[in-house]
Amino acid sequence: MYNETATQAQLLNKHIMNETLTFRSQIQSLQTRVDAALQAYLQPRVAPQLWEAMAYSVLNGGKRIRPLLVLLTCEALGQDAQPALPAACALELIHSYSLIHDDLPALDNDDWRRGQPSNHARFGEALAILSGDALSSYAFEILSLPGLLPAETQLQVLHEIALASGPSGMCAGQVLDMFGEIAESEKLQAIAQIYQLKTGRLIRAAVRCGAWIGGANESQMVALTRYAEALGLAFQIQDDILDLTGSLDTLGKTPQKDLQQAKRTWPWAVGLDAASQQARQYLAEALEALQTAQIKETQTLEAMALYLVERQA
Amino acid sequence: MYNETATQAQLLNKHIMNETLTFRSQIQSLQTRVDAALQAYLQPRVAPQLWEAMAYSVLNGGKRIRPLLVLLTCEALGQDAQPALPAACALELIHSYSLIHDDLPALDNDDWRRGQPSNHARFGEALAILSGDALSSYAFEILSLPGLLPAETQLQVLHEIALASGPSGMCAGQVLDMFGEIAESEKLQAIAQIYQLKTGRLIRAAVRCGAWIGGANESQMVALTRYAEALGLAFQIQDDILDLTGSLDTLGKTPQKDLQQAKRTWPWAVGLDAASQQARQYLAEALEALQTAQIKETQTLEAMALYLVERQA
Repeated sequence: MYNETATQAQLLNKHIMNETLTFRSQIQSLQTRVDAALQAYLQPRVAPQLWEAMAYSVLNGGKRIRPLLVLLTCEALGQDAQPALPAACALELIHSYSLIHDDLPALDNDDWRRGQPSNHARFGEALAILSGDALSSYAFEILSLPGLLPAETQLQVLHEIALASGPSGMCAGQVLDMFGEIAESEKLQAIAQIYQLKTGRLIRAAVRCGAWIGGANESQMVALTRYAEALGLAFQIQDDILDLTGSLDTLGKTPQKDLQQAKRTWPWAVGLDAASQQARQYLAEALEALQTAQIKETQTLEAMALYLVERQA
Repeated sequence: MYNETATQAQLLNKHIMNETLTFRSQIQSLQTRVDAALQAYLQPRVAPQLWEAMAYSVLNGGKRIRPLLVLLTCEALGQDAQPALPAACALELIHSYSLIHDDLPALDNDDWRRGQPSNHARFGEALAILSGDALSSYAFEILSLPGLLPAETQLQVLHEIALASGPSGMCAGQVLDMFGEIAESEKLQAIAQIYQLKTGRLIRAAVRCGAWIGGANESQMVALTRYAEALGLAFQIQDDILDLTGSLDTLGKTPQKDLQQAKRTWPWAVGLDAASQQARQYLAEALEALQTAQIKETQTLEAMALYLVERQA
């Protein structure tokens, strides 16, 4: 009996390890495709200084989380990910522009990003501002290239991304994070709103764009949106936990920046342990939403959620 | 004989005056429509500080040149301008964002704009950067609203504007203006390129968007594009002449800023008189292109070109 269970446990472990290996190699292969596409999009044209500064901040070994979510969602719906590649790249360009502008002296004033000098530390403030601006417009240039997708779908995808990144999404989150006043009695709701807007909307847009392109039906869209919303919260809580517990080496950016700047974060509001527990609750919510989505293949989206919440960098 | 000629001249003058009055009242009425639409688009939502900063720089009595070009081109093709209003407003939002970022300390460092403190002088650098970012994304949010136009046309319009404002257009022009090296033997070509990218592309996009929405055929598109390109150069040369000859009162922004910053402008390269003459040559080119466009009604586009090059502020 004991031996039998041990064998079962061994088999299960082996199964999990194989699954993990399969997932890791799957996302590595997708990351390689995204990186190649980004590199092609960022070949210098007129004003090569500008393209150099843009490429510097995009092609620096980012984890490509948003592109992966686009592509994996599309594949989970049984569709080829190739038509989703431009939207995946556009989201990464927008994410990169937001990091360049966030790092500016007038905002978070961070000289390090992904283990390298941040854009303004390398190219100066003027070029950092302009390369962020350019990446944002360039994302929409790519998203509106003629003939990428059926025109109606292409507009839906574009609108999804514009809404998520603009003044009703990411930009609003950044402003609330910097200037919003938070009443003591409502601090967790206020922080949740900042997380939802600042990080959550782009994560949500990534999943929903993959879903639009993958041809999700209405109930799949609802379930995948719930998955993305819960995952966005879990992901950002984990990010702020890592800010407190990581080092410059593991993070590639200045740690404990949030503490120094007295940022209102989830761990600041409830403590590290409770924050960690709540990240896992949101993760569970995301996984549960997936179960209701009635889609062919949920394993990689599950693995992706686990990977995002259990990462250490 | 003498009397007869005098009477003819009087009649001609009266005709021109009537035409001018008609044109002025026509553009005033369009400006009012654009202002009302912009005001509606800029009603505050979440993060009201952000919306306040965005509205501050958009709703401050701009001349609405780019929106007017969209709407007048659409009307010149015999179409109602109403469906072109969102594209017209989106271009104005992009123009406004570019001014907010241009005025930043790290770029042109200007504390005045349209007779008021510039955005960062009023709200601080962080909010100025973020409100510029938000206006840019918001333009694409508006341009991708479902059902504005037939989907194919809507994508064409969106792509036109993204191309014009991004790293192959306005952003590239700004970088060349700030960092480009200009050989003495090629200075006029280099300045023309900066003008074309920095100002010209958005003017060109305005006319071409009006043309797409107005249903221009291929040869009309070619002629209207020529009109827009020549007009863009004439307009920017005049702008730089006014920078040299105007006052804070007439301009609403710091005059002779270009001189202080040793900017390479057309008047700097060839002198004021030659620059003024060349602005008129480009104006003539724009008017001539219109004659070849075979469109119903060229008068208002002619009057608009005259207005843009003969303005004193």
